[in-house]
Amino acid sequence: MNGPGLAGLDDAAIAALAAAGVERLHIDAASPYLLIAEHAGHVVPAPWHDLGLPGDYLGTHFAVDIGIDALTRRLSRMLRAPAVIAHYSRLFLDYNRPAGEWDFMRPDLGGIPVPGNVAPDATDVRLRKSIAWAPVEQAIVEAAAGRQALVSVHSFTPVMGGVRRNVDIGVLWREPSAFVTSVLKTLGAHGAEAGLRISDNEPYDWRQAIGYTLNRHGLEQGRPCLYLEVRNDLLSDPETFELVSRTLETVFATVAMSLWPKPAVAV
Amino acid sequence: MNGPGLAGLDDAAIAALAAAGVERLHIDAASPYLLIAEHAGHVVPAPWHDLGLPGDYLGTHFAVDIGIDALTRRLSRMLRAPAVIAHYSRLFLDYNRPAGEWDFMRPDLGGIPVPGNVAPDATDVRLRKSIAWAPVEQAIVEAAAGRQALVSVHSFTPVMGGVRRNVDIGVLWREPSAFVTSVLKTLGAHGAEAGLRISDNEPYDWRQAIGYTLNRHGLEQGRPCLYLEVRNDLLSDPETFELVSRTLETVFATVAMSLWPKPAVAV
Repeated sequence: MNGPGLAGLDDAAIAALAAAGVERLHIDAASPYLLIAEHAGHVVPAPWHDLGLPGDYLGTHFAVDIGIDALTRRLSRMLRAPAVIAHYSRLFLDYNRPAGEWDFMRPDLGGIPVPGNVAPDATDVRLRKSIAWAPVEQAIVEAAAGRQALVSVHSFTPVMGGVRRNVDIGVLWREPSAFVTSVLKTLGAHGAEAGLRISDNEPYDWRQAIGYTLNRHGLEQGRPCLYLEVRNDLLSDPETFELVSRTLETVFATVAMSLWPKPAVAV
Repeated sequence: MNGPGLAGLDDAAIAALAAAGVERLHIDAASPYLLIAEHAGHVVPAPWHDLGLPGDYLGTHFAVDIGIDALTRRLSRMLRAPAVIAHYSRLFLDYNRPAGEWDFMRPDLGGIPVPGNVAPDATDVRLRKSIAWAPVEQAIVEAAAGRQALVSVHSFTPVMGGVRRNVDIGVLWREPSAFVTSVLKTLGAHGAEAGLRISDNEPYDWRQAIGYTLNRHGLEQGRPCLYLEVRNDLLSDPETFELVSRTLETVFATVAMSLWPKPAVAV
């Protein structure tokens, strides 16, 4: 991008863009969970002019985990669990990637160039980190404190390179834990009942994949954690959205009661 | 697509769409070459409503080999060589794929679904073959008769999955021939002079790739043949377009004179 143009942004403008980039829900709720939706947003901050892309691209799975903003709000409300939701597109900056990774600011969408990401200069990169990385990092650090487990909520595209993915909800994990085991078992049972195909480390295997969010805030802190991956067309249809939401609510409520039963309250 | 809707197309409409899908240039020229540009087009016939895609997608490398319509016309004119140019997008039907291949009617663009290609019914497939396959097949069969060598002209995107392709023009071949050897040698020399990076079976290796056009009309007929692959951003800039065109003109003229010298004409 045009470094000198961006350099004209003053501190107040940068602070406003940073504040608009992340949302905290039910942050004081007494829940064992923190929900994280770092790919929920499709917005590119205005000074970046959609990174030079036609607007249609910002609605695709390259730019946003389709349906995850709505699903995370719903789960947060029904489970009374705190959530951190990012508003900026992963094309602007992908929080779930280490800063040096090629798709931290993805230069192409399967070969379609992203003009604003071909060669961002140092000013541009610094600004994006201030606006779309630091506020998310801070929000997660604060909200994760004292929680038992982290759930990062994602969606995936149904067909890739002509291959139809025969998964409805995937549970992605990297290190085993009682939490992961319990979710896999409980979701397996409730998913089967709901007619949903549940998969273990599919359609991606986190043990083979590069991420940042849960490496940093989960594994490195000794917190059990997993990525949920929901097939995005299930979230575009109100009926299957409802089915997926209810199934996940039941499962995470059941797991919480099983692993972290609330002590009886003295009256 | 809507089979019954498409079934309403009458024979005259189908014939008109088929006729509009392919163009023959300098078809009677006395040249050893036939140029083929089966991926030159970005048009989806109107009854298919852009396959349900936003129009922007039809300008991407997924839909069309960017710059190849212009390059093929230029080469045809300057070399006085016949050319067959297809006008319909490879998303509608990819002539350079066997009919059973997954991307004969590509269902997704790197995960972005192509609504009209998710589950085309039998009527739809039959109509597309009548409109976008049979006329191209016939045009190539007719135009290839008596030619010494086939050149299929393609372009590729400069960056794929974050990897910048350090190739300007690739020569893709599957079976060795004096023609391939001569083009590689001559283009290597002229390319170096022009500052163009010439590659041998890059950015794709035809020996590892699935194609149809030159398997059918070249190799199976015992005709020497190759795919040219030009980096598409070179064709979007008038200066580099000129450089690439002139280099290729010189090279193919030189190769023709070397391999198929014209007999002296009795006067």
